[in-house]
This record gives sequence, C-alpha cells and structure tokens, in this order.
Amino acid sequence: MSLSPQEQVRILSRRCEKMHSEAELIGKLEKSARTAMPLRIKMGMDPTAPDVTLGHAVPLKVIRQFQDWGHKAVIIIGDYTARVGDPSGQNTTRPVLSGEQIDANAKTYVAQVGRILLTGPQHLEVRYNGEWLGKMNLVDIIKLASRKTVAQLLEREDFANRYKAGAEIRLHEILYPLLQGWDSVMIDADVEMGGSDQLFNNLVGREFQKEESKSPQVVIVTPLLVGTDGVMKMSKSKGNYIAVTEAPADMFGKVMSVPDRLLETYYTLLTDLPAAEFSPLIASDPRNAKVKLAKSLVTWLHGPEAAAAALERFEKVIVGKEIPDQMPELFIERGSHKLAPLLVKAGMATSNSEAMRKIKEGAVRLDGQKVLDAQREHTFEQPVVLQLGNRKFARLRPSIDGPI
Amino acid sequence: MSLSPQEQVRILSRRCEKMHSEAELIGKLEKSARTAMPLRIKMGMDPTAPDVTLGHAVPLKVIRQFQDWGHKAVIIIGDYTARVGDPSGQNTTRPVLSGEQIDANAKTYVAQVGRILLTGPQHLEVRYNGEWLGKMNLVDIIKLASRKTVAQLLEREDFANRYKAGAEIRLHEILYPLLQGWDSVMIDADVEMGGSDQLFNNLVGREFQKEESKSPQVVIVTPLLVGTDGVMKMSKSKGNYIAVTEAPADMFGKVMSVPDRLLETYYTLLTDLPAAEFSPLIASDPRNAKVKLAKSLVTWLHGPEAAAAALERFEKVIVGKEIPDQMPELFIERGSHKLAPLLVKAGMATSNSEAMRKIKEGAVRLDGQKVLDAQREHTFEQPVVLQLGNRKFARLRPSIDGPI
Repeated sequence: MSLSPQEQVRILSRRCEKMHSEAELIGKLEKSARTAMPLRIKMGMDPTAPDVTLGHAVPLKVIRQFQDWGHKAVIIIGDYTARVGDPSGQNTTRPVLSGEQIDANAKTYVAQVGRILLTGPQHLEVRYNGEWLGKMNLVDIIKLASRKTVAQLLEREDFANRYKAGAEIRLHEILYPLLQGWDSVMIDADVEMGGSDQLFNNLVGREFQKEESKSPQVVIVTPLLVGTDGVMKMSKSKGNYIAVTEAPADMFGKVMSVPDRLLETYYTLLTDLPAAEFSPLIASDPRNAKVKLAKSLVTWLHGPEAAAAALERFEKVIVGKEIPDQMPELFIERGSHKLAPLLVKAGMATSNSEAMRKIKEGAVRLDGQKVLDAQREHTFEQPVVLQLGNRKFARLRPSIDGPI
Repeated sequence: MSLSPQEQVRILSRRCEKMHSEAELIGKLEKSARTAMPLRIKMGMDPTAPDVTLGHAVPLKVIRQFQDWGHKAVIIIGDYTARVGDPSGQNTTRPVLSGEQIDANAKTYVAQVGRILLTGPQHLEVRYNGEWLGKMNLVDIIKLASRKTVAQLLEREDFANRYKAGAEIRLHEILYPLLQGWDSVMIDADVEMGGSDQLFNNLVGREFQKEESKSPQVVIVTPLLVGTDGVMKMSKSKGNYIAVTEAPADMFGKVMSVPDRLLETYYTLLTDLPAAEFSPLIASDPRNAKVKLAKSLVTWLHGPEAAAAALERFEKVIVGKEIPDQMPELFIERGSHKLAPLLVKAGMATSNSEAMRKIKEGAVRLDGQKVLDAQREHTFEQPVVLQLGNRKFARLRPSIDGPI
C-alpha cells in the first residue's frame, strides 16, 4: 500500500459528512498495514426495499475505496427485523416479509452491490442478523435495553422531532437502534458506513463495542443524495430515485432530468472526477455537463457500450423531438391515470372535454410518443414528459404520496 | 352467596382508592354467581424483597375478601425479572437473585401471605412469570413493545417526574410494565389488585387483555400505607415497615410508635372495625386507641394469646419504664453503631467524651435496658428507644438510606 493513512483519509473525505473519529481511523489503518489484517467495513441493508439506489451507492463507493486498499466489506441483511415488520402497522414502508422474500431480496442485493463492490470471499462477507438476533431471549434484551436511557434515544433527530410534535413513537422503534448496534458487536466491525441519517444508530454500535471491551468502530456517514426531484432524499417511496440496476436508457434519461443545481453534488458523490474538471463545465455548459454525468454513471454501472447506446438513443428520441430539460413538474399519484385530467392539471387545457379533443387531434405526446386514445389508462411508475403541440411540456412525477 | 354484587362492591370500597370500573366488576360478580365460576384475583409480588409488610396487607385483605366470597387468588412471583435484576446497576433495591434465592423467597411468601389469605389449591394459585416470559424471543418482545408508544409510557407518574427532572430512565424500565401486563393475559386475571402506585402498570394488563380479545381485568388499587415514621410509604428500604411476620412484641411496639394522626387510616385499612367504633375512641383517647389497634393487629396475624402476651410485655417493659409514645426521631444508617456519637446527634450530650461518661455512669438505656459498655457496637435493624436518665428520649430509626 503506497498511500499513507493520512492520504487515505483525505481521499475518503470527499464523501464524508462526519467521521468519529479521524484519529481512530488513522490508527486502525496504521495497525492494519502493520499486521496485514484487513479492516472490516460494515454496512446494513434493509431487505424490505429491494432496489439499491444511487443514494446507497454513495457509502458503497466509500466501501469500494476501502476494498481497493485491501479491506473487507461486511454487508448486514436485516432479515430478522424484516420478519417482524412494523407490528404496529404504522409504518407502511416496513412490511412484514416472509423468509422466502427476504432470501430473494438478499440475493438481488448481492447482485446489485456487486456492481459497485468487489465480490468474492476475500472482499465481501454477507451476514443475516437473524443469525444472532434470533437467539436472543428476554434476559438478553432487557440487558441490552438497560444500557441506554429513554432520553438518549429520544435525542435521535427524527425521534426528537416526532416526540416534540406529539407524533407517535412506538416502543419497538426505539429498540431497533440497539439491535442494529448489537450487529456491530457481533461482526466486529472496524468501520460502519451509512447515510448521515444513520449517524445516531451507528454511534450506538460504537458504544456497545466499547462496553464489550472491543475496539470501537469508526463511524463514517455520507451526505444524503437528493433525488431527481431536486427536493427530497433519494428514496424508493418518493419515486425520485435511480436504481443502480436501472436500464441504461432509463438511467440516462433520469440523470438528464436532475435539476442543474444538483450537478456539483452528483459529480462529487457519484464520480471520482476532480472538481477542477467538472466545476468549470457545469458553470459554462450545464446541459453538456449533465450529458457527461449521465454517460459517466451509465459507464460505471453498465459499461461503455451501454453508455454509448444510451447517449445515442437519448439524442435521437428526446433531443430529436426537441424536448427541453427544464420544464414544469406535476406530482401525481403512482398508478393508473387517464391523460385528459392530467392535461387540465398541467394547465394545458381548461376542461376535460377540451383535453380529450386535443388528444383525439393528435396534439398530445408522452415521452415523444403520440397518444390518440383518450379513454386509455396509462400506468405511471417513473417520470415521463407530457407534451402538447411543440411548445408545451410538463414532467409527470409519480409518487407514492401523490400530489405534493 | 347472600350479598348482592352492589353490596360486595360497597364493602370493597373501604380499601379502594380507584377502580376501573365498578360497572365491570359488578358484571363479573354477577356472571360468576350465575355460572359458579370463581373470579381470578391477581396480585404480583417482587421476590427481591422477601418481607410481606402491612403495606402489602392492604390489597391482600381485599383479596381475602374475594376469597371469602368464593373467588381465587392468583399470586404472581416475578421470578424472571428478578433473575435479571437491574442490569444498569442504577437501582440497588432490585438486586440480581439466583434461582435458589428466588425459590426460597417465594416459599416464604406463600407462608407470609398465608397469614392473610386462604390457602389450598381451591383458594390460591401461585405462579412464576418465568413460565411464560422465559419463552419469549425477540420477535415476541418487538410485537409487545409495538403496542405502546414512548409517550404513553412516559405518562406514568414516576416516569413523567423523572423525565421532566432530567433523571435517568433506563430503557428496560419502560419494558417492565409491558411484561407485568402480559402476565395478566397469560393467567386470565379477572381483577388485579395492587397499591395505587401500580395503577398504570395494571391498566396496561387490562389493555393487553382487550387487544387479545379477552375479558379485561378490573383494576382495583388501594391507598399506600404510610410507614411508622408517619411520612413515607411503608417500605422495607425506608426502615419504616411492619412485617406481617414481625414477632408479636415487636409488632406491638412498632404499632405503638405510629403517629396518632395515622390511626384513622390504620384502623380503616388494616382492621374491619366500623368507623363508628374507632373514630370516637381515637378522638377521645388516642393512646388507648393505639393499644387497641396494636392488640387487634397482633391478634389478626398471631392470634389472641400472642396479642395478650405482647400487651403484657409492652406494659411491663415500656410503660413501666415510663417511656412516652411520642418523642424526637433520629434516622440512622442501618447496621453497627457505637452509642456515644448517637447521643451527641440526639442532642443528649455535647461531645463524644461527655456521652461516654454518661454511658459509664449508667444513665443511658436502649429500649429500657441499661447500657454500660461505651465501646460496644450495637446493631440496629429496627427502631429502638434511646434514653438518657428518666426524661430524655429519642427514637433511633435505622434506614437503608441512612440519615434523612
């Protein structure tokens, strides 16, 4: 290894929002170099959301960096808690999964993270936390719970906000961070990676390791990637995400729909290009900067041929139809819709009957394709461009939450 | 059964601070009379404190009342949580007990409550909650925890006060009420008895039963008996308690040390005498009322001969020495003490050397017995009367917490 630990930490800092602590990481890197023992870099994955997104890709890129330096990724599949789901039924994003579903999701995970991480037993270990959590009895859980106070857990930002707002926090929810922390003890994590919303949980693991007289893990959190809507954290439930397995053409198109102001962040977090290269380009020619970003991301995740093909298709289908990048956005409920009411909502017609007439006239397109049947139901899962004539455009953004 | 349910409820009301709900209890009593199925009257006991006190005797007397009407007492020994103790080490009154200690304590419990309750399998069922709690795994506990919100548990008065005051509440502490509540589901309690500080916990059991589509238990809480110090709840850890197995003479003497203003409460909660009988006596001759109360309690728990002997001894030893009932109190740490410093603390001497001189002169007595050896260590577990000459008296009250 030719880089000094200090240089390594400097490289990691590109995607690091907080690190506890830099000095400890340097110590661990030095020791690893001295003893030729790879560090164990943990990251937890929730098997209830099977798509790995570019949001997850940010901490995964950091892990890949560690792997390139000889360390080992340890991916924890939270199968045990997924089997419980959210028993209070309050949190619909945490459904109960069967053992088969969890296993199926876990397999796709490995395939997905394999686009970013090195695989093979020397590089990657995948563990299911049911292995140890399934053996816990009430005494074990009481002992674990006794290590933390209610006040400490209510300090976690989202809990604090909900508690202040009088919103419900079910008791099992404040147990979950403890279980996640216990995972770190069980797998002897040296570093835990996660998004910045995982900071609190990951520090719990660090404290538990100290209490067990183990070397405490270094906690590194990465910035949360804002989704293609330019507003919210990239997340499956918001319909604003790009999956790492997204088909090349879709990935290319979605990146092109990202607002210009996110370009710096996307370049920084998702590519390894130096700022000296991308910053001037973004400033002078954002459209071209975006094409370059899209090509770079598709190359990374699908290879150069796929990227070239996606670029070609994009230019033919989208640019050829002279669809602009920037246009008004209309948030709609995911699922089936007739077009006429959407034309009215988008301000392209003043009544349903006017909208239907325009459809029949052949003036309406979806992603450049003419729509002629006004009665047809269209199913929306991803953003599409609604177009009236040659001049009026709106991007329809399906979202689980519906219009916002 | 000749009494109507309404009359039964009126009789119970003598020791009832709150009941949820009277209408439901009447319904259960009616159904029991109709079906000849006895009600199951639950009370939980903490096996870490082996003495059953007159404080516990108040709800136990209510249970005895139910037994006399044909119902069944179900005493729950909290063995499982006693095996865990307080793992955070914050609460010294909840030590970890071995299985042997718990079994030993549980046996003495049955002997102790047998002074108040009817025994025999048709009257009394003793259950260890390890029977069901020991089988719970993490999934069961997550499901149980999901039924309550953090805010609901922090509503419990002592938790609310501690949380507001910034005092520590360990996470396992807010799990305990759920476990206690689960006990009610497991044993199909119809009524749960307890002191008024158990109201919240016992209502949790009621809610869990409803959620399990079982008939919800009626929760009856009795007033907390103030201890012999006249200030705090009767409790082993405060040294202000009278155990139901207290030797007759000690029990008699302790009752005589109770402040006059508690007489009404003690008569109401611990005897079945009508107020028309004891109230005028307390008003006209409190000393005699206290002797009568002491005799009545010793008769109840030890029989009439023991009571007569205790009265005789009391009159000979204490009254004969002209020791007053009311005197200053000095709280001391339980355990070994030399007398001289206590004489100084009690204001009977201005220095240790003066106090030692007075001991050697034969002017100092403990419970009427002369003490001559100034070097001797005295072990204090129970209140004793320290006396200087014929006029100066102080009651030494040993307490785990030491001077207050």
